[in-house]
Amino acid sequence: MHPRILEVRKNILRKNDEFARCLRGQFADAGILVVSIVSGPGAGKTELLARTIAELQPLHRVAAVTGDLATENDAQRLATSGAPVRQILTGTMCHLEAQMVADAVAGWNFELLDFLFIENVGNLVCPSSFDLGEDLRVLLLSTTEGEDKPLKYPTLINTADAVILSKMDLAAAVEFDEEAARRNINRARPRVPVLPVSAKTGAGFEKWLLLLREHLALKRAGRAGRANA
Amino acid sequence: MHPRILEVRKNILRKNDEFARCLRGQFADAGILVVSIVSGPGAGKTELLARTIAELQPLHRVAAVTGDLATENDAQRLATSGAPVRQILTGTMCHLEAQMVADAVAGWNFELLDFLFIENVGNLVCPSSFDLGEDLRVLLLSTTEGEDKPLKYPTLINTADAVILSKMDLAAAVEFDEEAARRNINRARPRVPVLPVSAKTGAGFEKWLLLLREHLALKRAGRAGRANA
Repeated sequence: MHPRILEVRKNILRKNDEFARCLRGQFADAGILVVSIVSGPGAGKTELLARTIAELQPLHRVAAVTGDLATENDAQRLATSGAPVRQILTGTMCHLEAQMVADAVAGWNFELLDFLFIENVGNLVCPSSFDLGEDLRVLLLSTTEGEDKPLKYPTLINTADAVILSKMDLAAAVEFDEEAARRNINRARPRVPVLPVSAKTGAGFEKWLLLLREHLALKRAGRAGRANA
Repeated sequence: MHPRILEVRKNILRKNDEFARCLRGQFADAGILVVSIVSGPGAGKTELLARTIAELQPLHRVAAVTGDLATENDAQRLATSGAPVRQILTGTMCHLEAQMVADAVAGWNFELLDFLFIENVGNLVCPSSFDLGEDLRVLLLSTTEGEDKPLKYPTLINTADAVILSKMDLAAAVEFDEEAARRNINRARPRVPVLPVSAKTGAGFEKWLLLLREHLALKRAGRAGRANA
């Protein structure tokens, strides 16, 4: 990378890290689990979120913010759930930053929430260096993108806490080789959990929702432990 | 965008434009048509190129350079055609720059070529501002990505000279609405040619190859015109 860009970028990342730390503190105080979703364009982030919110809502209070260069389409689509949703417009920027998230959630009472989802801009490179204060970063790889993406985009997968194989309903039609995909994911990021799902049919959602609920329980147990200490 | 990044970026873009101008001059002198391909990850750039090279080769001399953050997979795949192919590895960068292309094609005799294809990094944002000296920039939108991408990624589509709707063989399986996609493309970039193709079945290739050959003929006619002037 260009040396001067590197220097300016270091400052931006340092400021972003400060904002992220501040956000993470607020989220921890409220005991809310924050999950960011990253993927390339059209891998199905919004469709995954729409079903995830609907399936969590009977038992949990859920909110979402969603990032795009342009259009409010995703926020409008997710808002039909009745959950609080805000759209972040990034203009020409290919990723979200912690301050954008802080601005978007300003005024929300985190104490009234269990889960906050952050849908990043569709990009397999730019979001990698920007901490958003999330507890979990989930990378979506679509069956339609091919099995080699974990090797071609090492920077982002190296920041992922879980990998979802999305659009499994299309796996047969696109001759998706799940074993090859798992092998490549494992080479890039050993031991990361891999969850094949279809937001269309609901296949794989049981495991995905369990992962979310377990992480929420763990976070709240940690918080209770700290409060009693 | 951050003011200091903007300033540094302006310098980088100015240098890139100088390199691109120099490349464009070399390509013009040799009468070679240079076509860059941009898309999100997994939209089928390499598959499109593999078939395009194979179909052009009986009558034309073709070469390609291909960009990725990591792996030589795409170059290896395209090199089976027998065409000269070079891989550019960008490390953490989400786009190609003119100097990288200049380095990759150094030593090639352009006089012996008709077409040079440049496959950019899979990204619907980053490549938009970087001129690579190409004659045509072709944007691939896959049927599996949904119809809304032209509206969500306005910066890149605004630099495209043609839009290919790729993976048309999957259109029915993903309930792709071609009319909606064309409407959105037309809103973002009025009058840009739109070509639905399937690199798997070859559907739509006749029009795509015709477009390439016509542009080559036009470029050479212009060159002959200048030589006679």
